[in-house]
Amino acid sequence: MDQVKVIEIKKSVFEDNDKDANNLRKELKDRGVFLLNLMSSPGSGKTTTLISTLNLLKDKLKIAVMEADIDSDVDAVKIKEATGIQTIQLHTGGMCHLDAEMTRQGLDNVSLEGTDLVILENVGNLVCPAEFDTGSCKNAMILSVPEGHDKPLKYPLMFSICDVVIVNKIDVLPYFDFDLEKCKEYVRMRNPKAQVIPICAKTGEGVDVFANWLLEQVKNWKQQ
Amino acid sequence: MDQVKVIEIKKSVFEDNDKDANNLRKELKDRGVFLLNLMSSPGSGKTTTLISTLNLLKDKLKIAVMEADIDSDVDAVKIKEATGIQTIQLHTGGMCHLDAEMTRQGLDNVSLEGTDLVILENVGNLVCPAEFDTGSCKNAMILSVPEGHDKPLKYPLMFSICDVVIVNKIDVLPYFDFDLEKCKEYVRMRNPKAQVIPICAKTGEGVDVFANWLLEQVKNWKQQ
Repeated sequence: MDQVKVIEIKKSVFEDNDKDANNLRKELKDRGVFLLNLMSSPGSGKTTTLISTLNLLKDKLKIAVMEADIDSDVDAVKIKEATGIQTIQLHTGGMCHLDAEMTRQGLDNVSLEGTDLVILENVGNLVCPAEFDTGSCKNAMILSVPEGHDKPLKYPLMFSICDVVIVNKIDVLPYFDFDLEKCKEYVRMRNPKAQVIPICAKTGEGVDVFANWLLEQVKNWKQQ
Repeated sequence: MDQVKVIEIKKSVFEDNDKDANNLRKELKDRGVFLLNLMSSPGSGKTTTLISTLNLLKDKLKIAVMEADIDSDVDAVKIKEATGIQTIQLHTGGMCHLDAEMTRQGLDNVSLEGTDLVILENVGNLVCPAEFDTGSCKNAMILSVPEGHDKPLKYPLMFSICDVVIVNKIDVLPYFDFDLEKCKEYVRMRNPKAQVIPICAKTGEGVDVFANWLLEQVKNWKQQ
């Protein structure tokens, strides 16, 4: 099994997270590094989505992954083994989210030289991660079909801060009462600008649409 | 559509939640009321499980339901309409969990006279609700098949504090890589005493096992 670097994240001491997040974003801009914050419920398929996406992008961009979990290194090892991409594990020690300072602790352990894209896989939680700006350039979230199309009604903040909503596990649509059109309508209620991308991370269906979206964001970030 | 009482929960001012939770438990004991704290990820089927369970128990016990959500009253209305049981909606105003004082704010709005069982449907979140004792007599959680059998590895605290783990959506087992035996093994790693009950809330399969477990708990609570 590949060795993955494990970072034990310390609680932040900064009081003004928004200011700290803006500073981090500016630093990333200066270095030409795009940071994506990827959020979702537990078990929505973040890791599988990441692996499919990374395999489509790894020849086009230099990428690093920071995998945040309360405990366990299972996903970080899986990502490194399946993609060969630089992956580090962030242990939050029970904490339910990452803020900008915690994200910075991770970035300090990534070799950023020449890196185009860093993906932060946030803690599996639809509530707290939405409340803390990580300093990311864009926010993405995954909603999986079995969770139901009503989630934008119940977790408004999460959907309102995300630039893209990936609807995963569309292969099991026939077995669940999930209405994709209603889902899109509810997402628009929370955030009219958010893009909705249906995918099946397991089979790869639709993952190219997300990969192209991400490629476009990285290019824009570097050119702006 | 039935009217459901909506309570806007205020942030707690008590510093010692554990003490407050023990006091609440003692008060409930004195009144012969059993409080169950039901937790899970978003979209694991808490509401459907509750409806199936309540319909099996409502002729045997006097029951009330407190439905906690960050926003929306969809589930509370659904429960009241499907079961006729006294249901109130707790709005947490963005907060990711309930503690004992917040639970008490809900209980103050429930008619407890003669009530045997109150079920608190906590905020959909596998992280924060596990950290705060609500004052409940027992904790239950739902893990749904699409979330994967590895969740006890990733959310250790949640699994370690639960007396029962309901594995829901077993009707879709053929479409997911979910190993029930591995799941039981991982749950036992976190909590050797936790009972694992596989169910399908939609078809009702296995719900009687959970309902009987709950009935037994209520009887023991009153007799002890």
